[in-house]
Order: sequence, then structure tokens, then C-alpha cells
Amino acid sequence: MKTIKLVSLMLLFAIAASGQEKKAIYLDENQPIEERVEDALSRMTLDEKIAIIHAQSKFSSPGVARLGIPELWMTDGPHGIRPEVLWDEWEQAGWTNDSCIAFPALTCLASTWNEDLSLLYGQSIGEEARYREKDVLLGPGINIYRSPLNGRNFEYMGEDPYLASKMVVPYIKGVQQNGVAACVKHYALNNQETDRHTINVNVDDRALYEIYLPAFKAAVQEGDAWAIMGSYNRYQNQQGCHNERLLVEILRNEWGFDGAVVSDWGGVHNTMEAIKNGLDLEFGTWTDGLTMGATNSYDNYHLANPYRDLIKMGEVGTEELDQKVRNVLRLNFRTAMNRNKPWGSMGSPAHAAAAKKIAEEGIVLLKNDKNTLPIDLNKTDKIAVIGENAIKMMTVGGGSSSLKALYEISPLDGIRNRVGDAAEVVYARGYVGDASGSYNGVVTGQDLEDDRSSEELTQEALEVAKDADVVIFVGGLNKSQNQDSEGADRLSLDLPYNQDELIQKLAVTNKNLVVVNISGNAVAMPWVNEVPAIVQGWFLGSETGNALASVLVGDANPSGKLPFTFPVELTDNSAHSIGEFPGEGGQVHYKESIFVGYRWQEKENIEPLFSFGHGLSYTTFKYGKVSADKNEMTPDGKITFTVDVTNSGKRQGAEIVQLYIRDVKSSLPRPVKELKAFEKVTLQPGETKTVTFTIDKSALSFFDAEKHEWIAESGDFEAIVGASASDVKGKTAFVLK
Amino acid sequence: MKTIKLVSLMLLFAIAASGQEKKAIYLDENQPIEERVEDALSRMTLDEKIAIIHAQSKFSSPGVARLGIPELWMTDGPHGIRPEVLWDEWEQAGWTNDSCIAFPALTCLASTWNEDLSLLYGQSIGEEARYREKDVLLGPGINIYRSPLNGRNFEYMGEDPYLASKMVVPYIKGVQQNGVAACVKHYALNNQETDRHTINVNVDDRALYEIYLPAFKAAVQEGDAWAIMGSYNRYQNQQGCHNERLLVEILRNEWGFDGAVVSDWGGVHNTMEAIKNGLDLEFGTWTDGLTMGATNSYDNYHLANPYRDLIKMGEVGTEELDQKVRNVLRLNFRTAMNRNKPWGSMGSPAHAAAAKKIAEEGIVLLKNDKNTLPIDLNKTDKIAVIGENAIKMMTVGGGSSSLKALYEISPLDGIRNRVGDAAEVVYARGYVGDASGSYNGVVTGQDLEDDRSSEELTQEALEVAKDADVVIFVGGLNKSQNQDSEGADRLSLDLPYNQDELIQKLAVTNKNLVVVNISGNAVAMPWVNEVPAIVQGWFLGSETGNALASVLVGDANPSGKLPFTFPVELTDNSAHSIGEFPGEGGQVHYKESIFVGYRWQEKENIEPLFSFGHGLSYTTFKYGKVSADKNEMTPDGKITFTVDVTNSGKRQGAEIVQLYIRDVKSSLPRPVKELKAFEKVTLQPGETKTVTFTIDKSALSFFDAEKHEWIAESGDFEAIVGASASDVKGKTAFVLK
Repeated sequence: MKTIKLVSLMLLFAIAASGQEKKAIYLDENQPIEERVEDALSRMTLDEKIAIIHAQSKFSSPGVARLGIPELWMTDGPHGIRPEVLWDEWEQAGWTNDSCIAFPALTCLASTWNEDLSLLYGQSIGEEARYREKDVLLGPGINIYRSPLNGRNFEYMGEDPYLASKMVVPYIKGVQQNGVAACVKHYALNNQETDRHTINVNVDDRALYEIYLPAFKAAVQEGDAWAIMGSYNRYQNQQGCHNERLLVEILRNEWGFDGAVVSDWGGVHNTMEAIKNGLDLEFGTWTDGLTMGATNSYDNYHLANPYRDLIKMGEVGTEELDQKVRNVLRLNFRTAMNRNKPWGSMGSPAHAAAAKKIAEEGIVLLKNDKNTLPIDLNKTDKIAVIGENAIKMMTVGGGSSSLKALYEISPLDGIRNRVGDAAEVVYARGYVGDASGSYNGVVTGQDLEDDRSSEELTQEALEVAKDADVVIFVGGLNKSQNQDSEGADRLSLDLPYNQDELIQKLAVTNKNLVVVNISGNAVAMPWVNEVPAIVQGWFLGSETGNALASVLVGDANPSGKLPFTFPVELTDNSAHSIGEFPGEGGQVHYKESIFVGYRWQEKENIEPLFSFGHGLSYTTFKYGKVSADKNEMTPDGKITFTVDVTNSGKRQGAEIVQLYIRDVKSSLPRPVKELKAFEKVTLQPGETKTVTFTIDKSALSFFDAEKHEWIAESGDFEAIVGASASDVKGKTAFVLK
Repeated sequence: MKTIKLVSLMLLFAIAASGQEKKAIYLDENQPIEERVEDALSRMTLDEKIAIIHAQSKFSSPGVARLGIPELWMTDGPHGIRPEVLWDEWEQAGWTNDSCIAFPALTCLASTWNEDLSLLYGQSIGEEARYREKDVLLGPGINIYRSPLNGRNFEYMGEDPYLASKMVVPYIKGVQQNGVAACVKHYALNNQETDRHTINVNVDDRALYEIYLPAFKAAVQEGDAWAIMGSYNRYQNQQGCHNERLLVEILRNEWGFDGAVVSDWGGVHNTMEAIKNGLDLEFGTWTDGLTMGATNSYDNYHLANPYRDLIKMGEVGTEELDQKVRNVLRLNFRTAMNRNKPWGSMGSPAHAAAAKKIAEEGIVLLKNDKNTLPIDLNKTDKIAVIGENAIKMMTVGGGSSSLKALYEISPLDGIRNRVGDAAEVVYARGYVGDASGSYNGVVTGQDLEDDRSSEELTQEALEVAKDADVVIFVGGLNKSQNQDSEGADRLSLDLPYNQDELIQKLAVTNKNLVVVNISGNAVAMPWVNEVPAIVQGWFLGSETGNALASVLVGDANPSGKLPFTFPVELTDNSAHSIGEFPGEGGQVHYKESIFVGYRWQEKENIEPLFSFGHGLSYTTFKYGKVSADKNEMTPDGKITFTVDVTNSGKRQGAEIVQLYIRDVKSSLPRPVKELKAFEKVTLQPGETKTVTFTIDKSALSFFDAEKHEWIAESGDFEAIVGASASDVKGKTAFVLK
């Protein structure tokens, strides 16, 4: 009997085998990923290959069910994990387990100039993604801040390629420690929302390589990003999602990227280009509700039936297909099929603490005359809080980064919680902004209705502010269309909703006026000289009010510095100065070339409202002399600069010491100076630390477009140490041999 | 600088630590589960404990997001993985990745009498559950078949406790090999659908222990089931989901169950009893649409706020809570947090092959006069297929076991596909049954409309059947209410929709009539003597038509045997004979005690229509003499019986050889005989194999309710070998000392 049973068992196991091949190479975690990829590839049918290179729902792509290769689930980032949506609709699915910690916007993270906090950010949001069983986080965003009108600047890391490069890498590593891929976006040249699906960006190679690509290159080569998202816009008259130059020549061939290229949602427009030009995963096509909304429209994707049909008709081979499948499988083995990834966590006190810490360190104290801040609660009886942004929810709206936060402490609540009984806190709204907008047809955010006239609101605000010891105006932009929001750009540098007039009246009414500007962009401040204290507050996420209150009363000493220039007026910005935003007739010409942000303002000698790298502290810092370890640097050598920094004030604080390099003479035009290193140092009162910067020739190089290489020309250079781009503390000259 | 950075990093890691404690015991896979459970328990707050013991949605319960303990996701079984439903609605969520292989109903699996196929079934469905990322499969169902009217009998494993015990264990092991818990249901005494939420079952302890509990005990002790589902009904006037005797005294204390007790959906009715009486996980309360349909009603669950409030008021302690949490955590560590589980697979050819194999082996050839079957296609020009069940989808409907099958081959399509050009296949519907029903307010199944009158349909069928070489009538029950469907019982043993009359007319019209009865229950067959061939087809899942065709033309030689008795009329069944189905005034009295199924019919000497264990083959088997290795057995000894079985026909076939034990004289009434062993042997034509059965005293024992123990009384016994309960092939006497 035993024999019979054994034979029968073996037969049955043979039947069950395909789901059980524990020793198949692709299922063997001890095998190298590349061998697992090749093994899985070799087992897949044409239909299975076609299936895994495009979406099956709004945010997922199929696995290979037959082989037990799991699906891939994406989630919007980059500031928190997007709430679950319906299978093929943008509407939320009504789940109750998807409330996240909203982390500060990436502009805020960039403002910390603190790579450790970027790592913490990545780890924390990665843990939330992992707990939600997501495989790919659609972020971080690192498009360069070219114009203050770009509606999505709040999701990016500012105007400087070096700062963005340094800050993006730890974020990626932190996310990916969780077995969740970071999908760096939007590659590349997606610097405006106007006409974003069609605009063709004309940019010279030098600007491309020096300004727009470095952060992506760092993400790929130093961050080891497992995924990258193609951009909506066109370049060389080809869509970013299937762009031969960007995706094949540069990303794959020059940088050696081995991750997956994911389309932006609806960014794919041409099957043959998508086949040939390096796209691996197509998402969002045809299902926007804008075009064909059919349920099973996924088969109509460019990389679905149309691609399969071309193969079957013999019009294209399968070489590109196999390569795409390899890239998707590699992504899968790194994420969904990574058995060793941690379990993640969500909504934890640790994540809340991380969000608060990043918010506190990213808040920038722009101006603080007469030590208006911090507010001394021992000497304060009444605090007037004015402005809609003191009560407006900012984690909702703004497009794909919109969140369902576990909680969001408003500035008013944060201030009230912190002040407690120490002083009276009174509030007036002062103005009424837009109702929160809609995106992809789905209404987001809360509608804070108020039927009173502007005059009535102003009058109430002035009344409330009149006899307060200090007035905190919390205004700025919000997440509605034409503010800081995806899908459209701002229409002006000015604050909306007549805030300028209100601020000016408040400043007259009460001299102790603090303006907190909540925005992800620079705004004009015509009242800058009438207001003693200005705080750049960003979109700070769940801990908004707690972090702001902490800075306002001095629990935290502000240490953030601007990751982009605040121009006085829009035309101080290069893109606007030359009339190349947002382009015309489907074309935009980046004629300013490399002169973006402070590079332009310094070249043109335009005084900024607040310069790149600017940010004050409640303490003061003194800089010593800048010295170098040599006068001459060899092309393959290094040079080290040192500067002593002393906390000359009365409380602990952190200073971001910035090293800029100036090429005194060059065969090509160069910026006056460029950021090439920075260090954030925390100092006790009276304490001095020596900050050391070591650079090599890469810090001296420009990109020679004709030779297509980085060139460091011998000659004179200057190492310039500053507390901001415009606040130079010292410099030293050296020569490259 | 290095020191500063390190300190700062350490601070940040401390902040991030709770999501990262890789060495915490509960996250350490190298630690024993019990230590991990205790460690996790010790870290949880009261609210976190309360949260994980009840649902957060229709089919999920929360994890501990703060600690990175994942959620638990349940899926209905037991025949396939239920399609995804909305968060808090029964409606399908419209996903397109949730089409499953529908496996044959458990009655069919039981009919195979093949434990290897039960293992294969469990492995296969477990792989599908795993691929769908489910942690708990709500199945298998093993309630004893007490009455042929029970609407859910198709989900269970028949009337015999021994057969059900043997068949359930491998299913559980197969499922759980995938890191998916089997949740054995419905524990216990859920033997009817009428008044299922309220009916109080009165049963003596002997029947409880001998008939209704053995399969559950085997599931727990031999199958090591990780979860068990409480039943809707009451016992000792207490709900099955919080029943002190069943859940505490028997399940935990007598059997040592260490898994989790999950409520049936909506089966919890009393907070204090749920606290005290062994329930661990509450599902489905208040969200039925029938009662309070509020979105966040989960907080109102008995084991949610009401429990927490009782603890806070000091009315109950936390001992029971901690025990529930331990049980849920243990389930979690075994499933969701099991890092080593395979990846599963779905809709694979292997699963289709498994479904077909189980279907082929489960189909029972009830009658086959004059070798009507198999159909010899070489001698057949025209096949008439008659009957609605030849075209009706059966994987949809019937309640919680309703599926979205990847495909379902109807009997007609299966026959057509198999016959091909070898013969003409014509079809007539013959009768019109119910439109498929609705369940939980959601319409299921397809509506096959037909406006013709019964006379017209009959006339067409007879016309079609008239000149066919063979007529295959495919009828029986379906998945509509009052047929084989959850929530209600059948109203009669008769076939519905006037099928009896149609069959009788067909039998007159064409002598070569094959009746295929699709059902999960016995039906009356008043035409049994007028029809030469009868096939019991069950609900066979995705491969229905392929498996049926395979048997009908003889590709597969039928080898299934009935897991329950077909009575001639309803009152032949004990429950109906004594008038105790479905009870009255909220009470049902199982006065038949242990005399269920063949135990009753044999005691009362009632000839069945088809007996328990009956099933024919296309070959024939001859049995040799039954012999024993001894005449006397000691109480602690064993005894072995052997019998030669020979394939005396002309084709390979499998015979299920059954060993029944008869207690010749007993102090308590005993059944005439009871199944105590079986073996399925495959034999080539002419081949003989020796079948060996070894038993110990457990096979001789009855449960003495007064002593509350199993007793094997010394004296005379008989070992009876049969091809069914009524087809005795031989016997031998022995004595228990």
C-alpha cells in the first residue's frame, strides 16, 4: 500500500508543482537577483510579459500569478502615503486604515540642509509605505526650481543642483531600507505645470547637465534609486516618458541605471517610442476620466495590446520587451519579493516626532528685527493670531500629494496648545481664500465658508490685533488651483486674497507683527520693511502647528535656510526676466541657460528679497578666517578649507555653513559662485567648532557641451564661505594646476 | 565634525527607533512564537489590544501600526478565494485581479475519499489565498450532514464523522503550508440555515462527541488548524460564537486549541459572554445592512468600545483581553508575519488541473445499467443535452462561497469541447429555474431568462431527445435561495422546477437517458427505475464541464463514493422521521442522537435510494475473504484486517474499500456499524492488491456521556468490509478482551 500511496502522492505533487517550485532559481533568495530575473523571464509567456509592463488599476501593476510573482503597488508621495483609491477611479476607497502621518513638504526638508533628517524622512515615510504594503513610493520630487510660479515647487528641493543632490540621496536610502522603491520624479525638465503634457523644453546641454540633471544623477548613482518617473513634458520634441536622449542615452547608457522607468500617470503617448525609448512601466493612460474611461481600458495601453500586436505582426522584436520585463522583475525582487524587508509602521509617535523635528529644522526665520521673536510668554498677556492659514488644512489638496492625515495640528491650535494659560490667544480670519480645490475631478480639502465682506474681515482682524502684545499673521498660499498645487501654475508672485493690504494695515495697527508665510514658493513682500519678523513656514504636515509654535516661542531655535531665492519681483527671476515662462506655442526656451536662481541674480547683480541659503537664528554666529591647506590643487588632488564658527549669542543654535566656489576666469561664462559644500553645525553658546570642507576638481568643473564632458580649467579659484549666498563671511584664493 | 554628526545621527535613530527595533523579541523570527507573543503583548496599550480583537472592515482586522504588526485579512472560502469587496459593503470592489480558480465544492472533495486530493485542494486554494495576500481562509466547513434540506450541506463533508475527520486534516495542512490559516467552520452544531442566528440546538453529549465534534477535534489536534469559526446557532441557550461549553471547556480545555476563535459574521450578540466565553476575533457585527449600517460602526462592536468601557469601569479585568490578544497575535505570527511563507500563485494551469482531478474523482456514478456509460463516441452520432444546469453558472450564488471564477466550463461546453466533431451535440433547456439569487442584498449570478412556457420547453426537449443516440439530462439543484444556498434551507427533497416530470418523459422518449444530478444534497429520484444511468455531479467549479465530459465519455473512470445517504423520501432521514427539523419555537432537539445518516437507516432497516459509501466504476472489483491477524485484541493493542481486491473488469479503476466496525453487544445502543477506516486503491485490469486496515480501541469506542469518556467495552465485534455501507463484501469477527 505504501508504494501506491507514494506514487499517487508524487503525481499530485507534480500537478501542484508550478506553484511550489521552491528550488526554482527565481524563487531562491540565495541566488543573485540577476539570475533570478533571467530565470523568471525565461518562464514567462508573451502575454505575461506584456501584462507586467503596464497598470492593471490606478496604482497597481500585475505580477505573474501563475509563477507566484506578486503584483506591484504604487503609492503617491512624496509627503505621506496617499489614501487608498478605488480600483479604477480617483475617488478614495473609503478605507479607514489609510490615515498617515503627513510629513513636511520637500521644500521644508531641503530647508533643513540636514542630510540626517533626509534619511529620517525617508525611513519614516518608507515605514509607512511598507506598513501599507506598497512597493513603490512615487517620490521624492527633485525638479529644479526655475520659476516661483511653478505650482509644484513645494514638492521639490529648491533651485540648487548641489543642495538637491545632497538632500535627495539619504531620502532614497531611507525609503529603500524598507524594501520600498523610491521613484524619483519627474525626470526631467518638468519645471512648470502650464501645458505640462505638451510643453517642449528647449535647453542647452550645459544647463541640462549642470542644473537640471545632477540631482537625478545623484539619485541614481549615489542613492541607488530603484525607480524613476518619466516626466509629462517634452524635450527634443519627445515626451519625457519615452525620450530617447533622457531615458536611453543619459539614464541607461551614461549613468548605468538598472531600475525601472515608470511613466507619470498619463504621460505615455506613443507606442513605438514607448517601446524603443526606455519606458518600463506604463501607468495612468486612458483612465483619467478625461479621455476613455472604460473599465478594462488597461488593455488599450500603449504597452499592452498595441505592443503585443506589433510583436505578433513582426513589426518589432522582443528584445526591448525582455529588457523592460527584466527591469520590472528586478524592481519586484527588490521590493515585493524581498523577504527580508522590515514590517514598517504607521502613524507612530516616532513618525510624528520625525515630522515635527523636520518641520522645526526647516522653518526659516527670514527676518527678526529687535528680537521680536521668540515670543516671551512671561511678558505676553495677549497673542492675536490672524489669517486663514492659521486654521486651514494644508495636507489636503494640491494634487497627487494630497493626503488623509491621521491628524493635522493647525497653526492656531498649535499656538493655543503651546501657550496654554500663559496668555490669551485670540483669532481673526482676516481674509477668505479659495475653497480647497478639486483634482482629477475629486473634491479635496475642506471648504471654510465665511460670508462676511473683506472689509468686515479686515475690521475684525484689526480690532483683534489692536491691543495684543504680539500679532502673528499666518497667511501665504494654499493648496488650491493657481496656488501651490499640481496641474496649474501661479498667476503672480503676489500673495493672493488681498493679504498684502491686510498685512500693511496690521503693521500699522500693531508694531509687534510676525508674518508667518505658509507656502512652497517665494512670494512678493511689499511690506517687508514694515514688519519686524517674518517666518517662512512651508507646508509642514501633521505637526504644522506644534512645530510653528515651538519656533515662535523659542522651544526650537530656527535653523532652516532657504533652498531658493526670494526675488523682490517676478522679473528678478531669470525665466521671467527673459520672458520664457511658461513658453509660447508649445515651446519654452530656457535661454537663461545655467543662470537659474541665485546664479542669475548674482550675475545680473539683482538684490534678492531673501537670498538662497538665507535663514536667521535666535542666536548669532561669528565666522573666523577661511583658510586652505594649500594654495595649489592638482587636477587629481583635493583641497581642504577650514573655518571656525562660534556661537556668539546666548542660546544653543545651529548654523548652516556654506561653501561656494568661484571660477575667477573661465573660457565659458560661469556663475559668480556656486554652492559646492555645506555643513550644519550645532553650537552651544560660546562654543566654537571648526568646519572643514574638502573638495576635488568636480567642484570646480563646468560641463563642456561640445566636448560632452566635465572640465575643470586650470587657473584661479576662490573658496567663499557664507551664511547665505549673499552673506559672505570670508574667502580664500587657490589655483588649480 | 565626525563626533557631532554621530551624536546627531544617534538622536535621530532614537526618534525613529520604534519602527526599527530589529532586535525586539516580537520582531525576531529566531525567537519562539510564544515569546514573541508575550513581548508584543507587553508593548501594547489597552486601545491597541481592543483594536486587534475585532474587525475594521468587512474582512480585515487591524494590526498594531505603531509596532509594525500587520493587519489580518480574511477571505471567504472554502471553494475559492472570494472577490474583493468594498471596505464596508458587501458589493464587489470592482477589482480585476481577483478572479480565482473555483474548486469543487467540499461535498465533491469528500466524495473522492482521497486524502491526497484533500491535501492538493488545500495546497492549491491556499496558494490562491496567499497570492491574494489573505491571511485567513474561512474554511473548510465540516458541519455534519444531518438533513438533506440544509442549504449549506454543499460546503461540508457529509454525514460521517470519520470520513469528515480524515478528509479535513490534509486540507488544513495544505492551506497552512502557505502561511494562510484555515478557519474551520462552523463550530459547532450549525446543521441548518432556518433560524440560524437564533435556533438553540439540544443534543445529548454522546451525539455531540460521537457525531458532531470529531471532525472539529481532528481539525484542531491532527490538522493543527490555526483558527476556528464560531457558529451562528445557539447551544445550551448560548450563541456558538461565545459558548462556554464549546469554546472554553471543550475547544480550549479538552482539546488544547491554541489558535484564534473567529466569530461568524454577525454571530456575536453579547459583550460579557464574548469576553468570558472564548471568542478572540469579532467580525460582521452591525454592518450587515440589516441593522445599523453606519460607517464607523466597528467601534460599536461588542469587543470594541463596550468591552473597553467595561474594563475602564472596572467591571471586568484584562485577563481575558490579554488571552484574546495572545491568540490573535499567535495567529498573526503564523500568517501575516510569517516571513518564510511561499508566494502563492493564482489561476495557474496547476490549479486548474487540481480542480479537474478532484472533480473527476469526486463525481459519483450512482447507477449504470447495461453499461449506458461511458458514451462510446465511435458508436454515437448524436448527443442530446437537456436541462438548465447544463448551461447555468454554479460558481456564483449560494451565499458567502460565491466566487468570481476566472472561468467556468459549463457541462454543455465541456461536452461539446470533448465530443468535438465525433458527434452532433444538440441542446434544449427543458425547464426554467430561479434566476440566481441575492445574498446580503447583493445580486449574484446570471439571470438566464426564457419566456417560453413549461410546455413549450418540455416539447422542445423531447423533440431534441427523440432521435439522439444518448440523452444527457443535466439538472438538479442550483445556488438560488431554498436550493443549495446559504441563509435558507430547502423546502423539499424533490427536484425543483418540475424536473421529475421532464425526466420521466425523457425516459419514455429515449431509453439511453443519463441523468446528471448537480447538487450538494440528496434529492428524491422517483424515476430511478426508469433511467439506466445516473451521475451525481456536485458543484464542480471552474472545470465542471471538462470533468463531467471526461467521466461521461470514459476518459476518467469514476471512483467517487457518496459521503452521505440518499434517502428515498425525506422521512427516511432521522431528523425528519422524528419531526425535528428545523425545530420549533427557537428549539431543535436532536432526538435521533447518534443515529444520523446511515446509522439511522441501518438501525431502522430503511433501504436507502443510494447508500453512504456507494459509487460505481466502469470496471468491476472482486473482494477476497476478509481476514484478521488475530482473533482477540487487547485494550491497548491493535488488530489488522486484510482483504484482497481485484479489478475484475477491463479497464483501470479505483475502488474505495471501506471498513466498518460492528459492536455485537453493548451496554448502550450502538449503530449497526460505523465507518472506521477506508483505502482508495487503483487497480489495473486483472490486478489484485491487498488492502490492510489496522485499528485500535478508539475504533471500537463509544462516548459514555455519564462518565464523560470514551469506552471500548470488551466483547464481540465484527470487522465488516464493504464497497458501501449497504454493499458488504465480507466480514470477520474478533473479541476485545
